[in-house]
Amino acid sequence: MAQKPSIPKGTRDFTPAEMARRNYIFDTIREVFHLFGFSQIETPAMENLSTLMGKYGEEGDKLLFKTLNSGDFLKSVDPELIRTGNCNRLASCICEKGLRYDLTVPFARFVVMHRNELQFPFKRFQIQPVWRADRPQKGRYREFYQCDADVVGSDSLINEIELIQLIDEVFRRLGVRITIKLNNRKVLAGIAELIGAPDKIIDITVAIDKIDKIGIEKVQEELIGRGISAEAVRLITPIITLSGTNAERLDRLESIFASCEIGLKGVAELREVMAGTEALGLNADLELDVSLARGLNYYTGTIIEVKARDVEIGSITGGGRYDNLTGIFGLPGVSGVGISFGADRIYDVLNTLNLYPEEISEAVKVMFVNFGSAEAARSLAVIRQLRAAGISAEIYPDNAKMKKQMGRADTLGIPYVAIIGETELVDGTITLKDMASGEQSQLSLQDLIEKLK
Amino acid sequence: MAQKPSIPKGTRDFTPAEMARRNYIFDTIREVFHLFGFSQIETPAMENLSTLMGKYGEEGDKLLFKTLNSGDFLKSVDPELIRTGNCNRLASCICEKGLRYDLTVPFARFVVMHRNELQFPFKRFQIQPVWRADRPQKGRYREFYQCDADVVGSDSLINEIELIQLIDEVFRRLGVRITIKLNNRKVLAGIAELIGAPDKIIDITVAIDKIDKIGIEKVQEELIGRGISAEAVRLITPIITLSGTNAERLDRLESIFASCEIGLKGVAELREVMAGTEALGLNADLELDVSLARGLNYYTGTIIEVKARDVEIGSITGGGRYDNLTGIFGLPGVSGVGISFGADRIYDVLNTLNLYPEEISEAVKVMFVNFGSAEAARSLAVIRQLRAAGISAEIYPDNAKMKKQMGRADTLGIPYVAIIGETELVDGTITLKDMASGEQSQLSLQDLIEKLK
Repeated sequence: MAQKPSIPKGTRDFTPAEMARRNYIFDTIREVFHLFGFSQIETPAMENLSTLMGKYGEEGDKLLFKTLNSGDFLKSVDPELIRTGNCNRLASCICEKGLRYDLTVPFARFVVMHRNELQFPFKRFQIQPVWRADRPQKGRYREFYQCDADVVGSDSLINEIELIQLIDEVFRRLGVRITIKLNNRKVLAGIAELIGAPDKIIDITVAIDKIDKIGIEKVQEELIGRGISAEAVRLITPIITLSGTNAERLDRLESIFASCEIGLKGVAELREVMAGTEALGLNADLELDVSLARGLNYYTGTIIEVKARDVEIGSITGGGRYDNLTGIFGLPGVSGVGISFGADRIYDVLNTLNLYPEEISEAVKVMFVNFGSAEAARSLAVIRQLRAAGISAEIYPDNAKMKKQMGRADTLGIPYVAIIGETELVDGTITLKDMASGEQSQLSLQDLIEKLK
Repeated sequence: MAQKPSIPKGTRDFTPAEMARRNYIFDTIREVFHLFGFSQIETPAMENLSTLMGKYGEEGDKLLFKTLNSGDFLKSVDPELIRTGNCNRLASCICEKGLRYDLTVPFARFVVMHRNELQFPFKRFQIQPVWRADRPQKGRYREFYQCDADVVGSDSLINEIELIQLIDEVFRRLGVRITIKLNNRKVLAGIAELIGAPDKIIDITVAIDKIDKIGIEKVQEELIGRGISAEAVRLITPIITLSGTNAERLDRLESIFASCEIGLKGVAELREVMAGTEALGLNADLELDVSLARGLNYYTGTIIEVKARDVEIGSITGGGRYDNLTGIFGLPGVSGVGISFGADRIYDVLNTLNLYPEEISEAVKVMFVNFGSAEAARSLAVIRQLRAAGISAEIYPDNAKMKKQMGRADTLGIPYVAIIGETELVDGTITLKDMASGEQSQLSLQDLIEKLK
């Protein structure tokens, strides 16, 4: 009995047409990574669970895909534990490995393991899939690619300026208009210090984020409802209602933080990064956004987030500076800053805006029609010459009906069809049909190569 | 307490230097795949175990990495089964998914699921990792890449000719001298028919393979020891001792198979493929090898195997024709032929013979030394211009000691170092140092771009 095959929910096959589009995005990102001096690494799909567990919070631990130990996986498990049926504890006994959840933790592990071979500052990029046992939904998958670039071993803000330039160049090439939002963890720490309530910082950023939608009074109400004192709300109201140019906002923040050292440090860093970036010129809009908090407990300095200006979708790229990523693996004091391109969301943006160049969908430049063995033999010899000249070419492998053969070229969007029939066999020419215009011409091999190059 | 990190046995990290070499191989293969009109697909790392189980024999099933179901994986498991501790049965209850074992079965599943979107003949390539819980050893890994190209939906032998040309082109580009060995499953079926013992065909191919090492008499002894009758051994001795040119061997086989239809069909197919290939010209040696049996129960026609001529290593590429790959998923009658490049062995061969072009190890074309903020700002502006001209460039992010900065360029093999110090800030030039020759020159931006392009 034949099975009706399927794939696990939340995962995807990519057809040639989809791959062409995805490769266009990955190739663009990869090229810009290289242009900026980043070098590629790869890490295994499976990591030891001891490397992954506890790095993504309790919720993250649950979303790890775990790999069952090979062979007699129950052998050394306490029978009592099996009887109790405690899944969490049992899982950690019968699974030693799991699929990576992101590229950041494996990268930290990599840096620690290879510290003696690496040249610091180490600029690496990595483009690989990650897996999360999330509930699948529109735009959220259980297997998806991340494209990360990080610099570790340098605390210079030049790295931030470079990464913002890199983001700008990627989206300039892709033709996506973006806003790059910047914040700094030290500004958030400053706000928390101002109001004497470090634990309320998430509530505050959530509230700041709503100002455009619900207005200042409702935001103030909400903050008080979340247990923030009226005095604290008064203190941070100028921050919530920050407006004007980036320079004006920075000046304003600076005066609010007058005697708050950490806040002032954050403003100074933002100023340096924004001034350095703007001096070089940028296609993107650059915007100070004090509501930006991404993975708060993780970042220690600059925070970066990218929004597409012409599509309603979440952040399409993000990142920031962290000061102690490798500490947990025994290598403290390595400062780093990194960004991650969300390939799947970028794919959705490009699909929505239809921003793909036309030529990427080409399977092959020219298809030769097959009229039988003598003609096919001559076609194969010509094809060999074309390929030697760097032109992709193929022959329809079977001597099928002309209509069927032409149909293939049509469906696959092959731009040219070449014909070597009886006539061409005799006079040594090739008839070339331009599939877009319908135009036909009879060419020598040399002219054919010139034409298709 | 910091953990000392490690990675699962049989898996590998790839450093930038290793990635550069691997990418050189993958890019070469990918480029040739495109040149021959193959289109890329990707499938998920995890497949349903129902897709994978039973496709690789009993041994293969054991080598599948299984993914533990998320959440309360014991919920619907019979407590009795848990108590008995039958690992195989329990595994299939608590694991629905597993990591792909090769690219062939996922491809067959893909073809069946996407049959209505695909244009047949469908020429796909796929370059992705696969996972096997094999005992790790030198040159054998638990995670490794396969690079497959297949044509399905055509039984024309032109496909075989094209794939052999493709193999030839890949190794020509990589600079590896190879022998392409060919056989045909129908020839093996013919031999089995001749001796009336289809179940002995593996014994026979193993024995034929030893002829060069132990001589004909010992091979004959071994065959009889394996239960093949003296009469049968006499019958197949001319096959075992086949020698001479490919044409001579084919003639010889043809006369041996005089009244064996399937054997004659195999010879005819081999003749057509070899003649077609040789007519087009080939760098590789092409050799008929009747001992070639690779995955006997799987192939139905042509069998291909590639050996490196200058390195002692197993087959570095292999493949063949199969007639019913998709049948198990409910789509019978789809003939296909495919090849698989063994990326890891090819990597070993290129390392052994040191066949990598020099430029692939370059992290970046030019590194700017960092002399402080004013100089760095000017450097970043110049770097922006270089990148716009397609030249990869970076600045040392920190104002570190000159020796340390130069050390980076040296260690990473960066070919040029650019210097913008006080003097250059004033006169608007850039000093460029060629790291190989030690030569320094003072250049305008325009000259710098020209020089580095």
